[in-house]
Amino acid sequence: MSETAPTHPFLESHRETLDAATTALRERSYYSRYPESPSPRVYGETAPQDGQAAHEAVLNKAFDALADQPTTGAAVGSEVSPYGPTLGVTYPQLDVDAAVEAAQAAIPAWRDAGAEVRAGVLTEVVERINKRSHEMAHAVMHTSGQPFVMSFQAGGPHAQDRALEAIVVALEEQRRIPASVTWEKPAKGDPIRMQKDYRIVPRGVALVIGCNTFPTWNAYPGIFASLATGNPVIVKPHPRAVLPLALTVAIARDVFAEAGFDKALIQLAAEDDGGTVARDLALHPGIKIIDYTGGPGFGHWLETEAANAGKLVYTEKAGLNTVVVDSTDDLRGMLGNLAFSFSLYSGQMCTAPQNVYVPATGVDTDQGHLSAEDFAGKLGEAITKFNADDARAVEILGATVNDDVRGRATDIPALASQLGGDVVLDSRAVTHPSYPDAVVRTPALISVDAGNGRAYTQECFGPVAFVIQTQDTAESLRRLTETVQEHGAMTAAVYSTDEEVLEATREAAADAGVALSENLTGQIFVNQTAAFSDFHGTGANPAANAAYADAAFVAGRFRVITSRRHV
Amino acid sequence: MSETAPTHPFLESHRETLDAATTALRERSYYSRYPESPSPRVYGETAPQDGQAAHEAVLNKAFDALADQPTTGAAVGSEVSPYGPTLGVTYPQLDVDAAVEAAQAAIPAWRDAGAEVRAGVLTEVVERINKRSHEMAHAVMHTSGQPFVMSFQAGGPHAQDRALEAIVVALEEQRRIPASVTWEKPAKGDPIRMQKDYRIVPRGVALVIGCNTFPTWNAYPGIFASLATGNPVIVKPHPRAVLPLALTVAIARDVFAEAGFDKALIQLAAEDDGGTVARDLALHPGIKIIDYTGGPGFGHWLETEAANAGKLVYTEKAGLNTVVVDSTDDLRGMLGNLAFSFSLYSGQMCTAPQNVYVPATGVDTDQGHLSAEDFAGKLGEAITKFNADDARAVEILGATVNDDVRGRATDIPALASQLGGDVVLDSRAVTHPSYPDAVVRTPALISVDAGNGRAYTQECFGPVAFVIQTQDTAESLRRLTETVQEHGAMTAAVYSTDEEVLEATREAAADAGVALSENLTGQIFVNQTAAFSDFHGTGANPAANAAYADAAFVAGRFRVITSRRHV
Repeated sequence: MSETAPTHPFLESHRETLDAATTALRERSYYSRYPESPSPRVYGETAPQDGQAAHEAVLNKAFDALADQPTTGAAVGSEVSPYGPTLGVTYPQLDVDAAVEAAQAAIPAWRDAGAEVRAGVLTEVVERINKRSHEMAHAVMHTSGQPFVMSFQAGGPHAQDRALEAIVVALEEQRRIPASVTWEKPAKGDPIRMQKDYRIVPRGVALVIGCNTFPTWNAYPGIFASLATGNPVIVKPHPRAVLPLALTVAIARDVFAEAGFDKALIQLAAEDDGGTVARDLALHPGIKIIDYTGGPGFGHWLETEAANAGKLVYTEKAGLNTVVVDSTDDLRGMLGNLAFSFSLYSGQMCTAPQNVYVPATGVDTDQGHLSAEDFAGKLGEAITKFNADDARAVEILGATVNDDVRGRATDIPALASQLGGDVVLDSRAVTHPSYPDAVVRTPALISVDAGNGRAYTQECFGPVAFVIQTQDTAESLRRLTETVQEHGAMTAAVYSTDEEVLEATREAAADAGVALSENLTGQIFVNQTAAFSDFHGTGANPAANAAYADAAFVAGRFRVITSRRHV
Repeated sequence: MSETAPTHPFLESHRETLDAATTALRERSYYSRYPESPSPRVYGETAPQDGQAAHEAVLNKAFDALADQPTTGAAVGSEVSPYGPTLGVTYPQLDVDAAVEAAQAAIPAWRDAGAEVRAGVLTEVVERINKRSHEMAHAVMHTSGQPFVMSFQAGGPHAQDRALEAIVVALEEQRRIPASVTWEKPAKGDPIRMQKDYRIVPRGVALVIGCNTFPTWNAYPGIFASLATGNPVIVKPHPRAVLPLALTVAIARDVFAEAGFDKALIQLAAEDDGGTVARDLALHPGIKIIDYTGGPGFGHWLETEAANAGKLVYTEKAGLNTVVVDSTDDLRGMLGNLAFSFSLYSGQMCTAPQNVYVPATGVDTDQGHLSAEDFAGKLGEAITKFNADDARAVEILGATVNDDVRGRATDIPALASQLGGDVVLDSRAVTHPSYPDAVVRTPALISVDAGNGRAYTQECFGPVAFVIQTQDTAESLRRLTETVQEHGAMTAAVYSTDEEVLEATREAAADAGVALSENLTGQIFVNQTAAFSDFHGTGANPAANAAYADAAFVAGRFRVITSRRHV
């Protein structure tokens, strides 16, 4: 950086954080800026109660913190907690054209502040969001249906870490471009000298379309990557998960104003269930970048039609997350780990395993050889045991998020029969001790033959998994590659004691374009990824065209404009 | 890099070159690996004759160096030099499906060699191409119509520098991903330790579609960026400019075989004039990346239809390259510089200026105030003087490349009348002393009023430029921004002695998304960019969706697949 590099108080106060995060990113080592424990010892003695009170204070009224956005005058809001209560929050309906214009007007000052200042200001945004993690946890819980601790962690610090990751990935990429250089070409006589100034310019106004299940975690990478590269953002939350992003946008707007920038750098486009704002904004000529998390149907539409209209589109959709079981030297650890992965948030994570391939020849374990049927039975027992206590189970399972998921889990025997499979373990309805209206379901297991591709080659979002019998592990790996190449996957896992099998699985995963977790038996789970170290998604299979957060996720969001002159 | 990082003799022999190029890239300082002077003192006493002999040896026969490609059995080839002679080279017609399969089979070994080895092997390819620069110059001259020295420079060393640039931009981006790390998360008791291996995987087979005017310079960035990131390449040259890329592909295949890799990493899909191979390959399911240089029509089709089909598409099309004239303290230098820019290769560069905005209030110069009309007249005189001597002029003008260009230059009074403008300077037919059949044309100047947008808001490829009278420089800048945002531009230039005007022009260029050259009066020209320092294109306006070579040009060409396990 030259001596005249622009700075800002928020850059000065967060320089150490940015440096630490940058180092972690380069090394892909363990790093977490935001503590994942909701303990009062970490977040302050009164943080839990304060958070709950703050949450309750926004319910059943207009969300005034966004009253200064351009609005049509109408109010929207139809959120109902998967745990039962109606939220009753109403949001000002965004005037989309005015919002795009306001966002465009916010560009020059934000662009000219430079990458370092943007990173500093955005880190302040994340720090402020972090301070409200307990309040955010309630907002995430009562929109997504996640259990409380998961809502805190995934909706709070883990999402905040991903936000900081996006900021530093973008910063690193922009740092590669010097602000100004003297270029000196040897020539006869004096060399030719030119000054070249490089200016990073944003692509334009960005749209981030949020999802119902991870309103913050899945939206933050796109929001912060676009902002960090100079693009204003319009956030279009899922109609049933507005509140977490409304809080986020309100916090960010306050920071922008305090930092001397235009609040219009971020705006919220809330809508009622069934609205068309996502589609309308996606085709709005002022929108240049789109980040999307959600179902494959609209995701594919964005990848084709919106991309066709010249937008840069990043999607995370869904796929067939796969586990290959070959052998293990820790049966108990493996079953416990898988039971957790299936149960966490009732399989409603885009990373939750769905398809478990088991060879017909059975599975060698430290507790002896198991037939494929016995293995399936033991996996079912592990899930049953894991969720045996209702009061504890609901703190893992959370609540089913919508009627689609509920419908799938309600009649497992009918589903199995329709798919041509057998019920290994039925789903069990769990009564939530605090929220009797919540629909809570334990995972079901259905066994099918590998030849019955129809049964398991579509995503079955929610608490249903398949044990798929293959001839042998070689067929399991072949199916892994083929199904993921065709249908996509966010995650893959393998259990084997055979180094050759592990190596073959790495090859299969590389060919399929999916990240692989090997022999997880402890407290790391296939459905969880760590910011700064693990990529979420790969962009190499149909489940997602992007990864959180690699260079490809940020590099297209800005351009470099050179001006050169003789000196 | 870990101690076990794979290496290769070609990596060892080119490590210093890669280091020097990487440093230049980071600093964006002057760097050229390949000398631009065709002098025998640089390339060897017999290089000119050897190159000419080598060129003549391939004419009028089958191009055997590619005989080992998968072929349909048919031969294609219809190249005729813009200087007159029929080349008579025939090429084996590629069996497209077999070629895609062969390319796919070449992926694993190339992928697993790693980024550093790929960079080493590819640098060897460029070094070998460099050694044949004289031969390449003849091939480029007799396909593009460029004059000889330009063919040598732009088709040889300058293209080779851009190739090396693409290699190191890709290398730098891949180096950000460590091969393997130990990740250690603090926990109660022992920390959780995992080994995480990161594997860079290519997107798939890439297609590079070449153009007629710069067969190597415009194709090398895509070819080498794709190869450097692990993707095999099928090169589809323009039917009238096959030979330079046939030589390139043959050289690369030899190097790949010698280096222990599959020759199918690069293949040539030559076709006769009027063929549909580009379109067929673009929609082939095996093709994952497309690089294109050429007309806006097919470019737009690729950006929409091929992108719609899931391909990653990089285009360089065309636009309205713009010069804003406000004032100057070196009229003579300015006119000479502009005369050269218009004349070089008869305006057939995608970077050649087309639209010159001049205020109706006239231009202050070191030779006094000039009215807008007087300025146009002086510019015409400078062009006339610059091209006064036929024998010297042809060495700058080259030959017109096709009938489309020729048609436009043949009857300038008719064109001016059709567009509602006035002829300032007619185009002059120049007889080439060595090639009487070449159609050589000096640039024409047509003056129009700024209100007559129809006249100058379409690309007029070839030796025609417009002097456009605006009310004042403010209008000139407004027109610059508006026309470039709507129609695109590869270059922009400004002449002004007023720092405020220069600053306003920088703003206008940033808003328009086009690189700016200020007050060029010497031996640097708006239509030329230097590898490692200047970006060619910006990706920020409709002329091109990519730039040679920024991070966005390479980051999407590869993906990272993680495998992780406890240690």
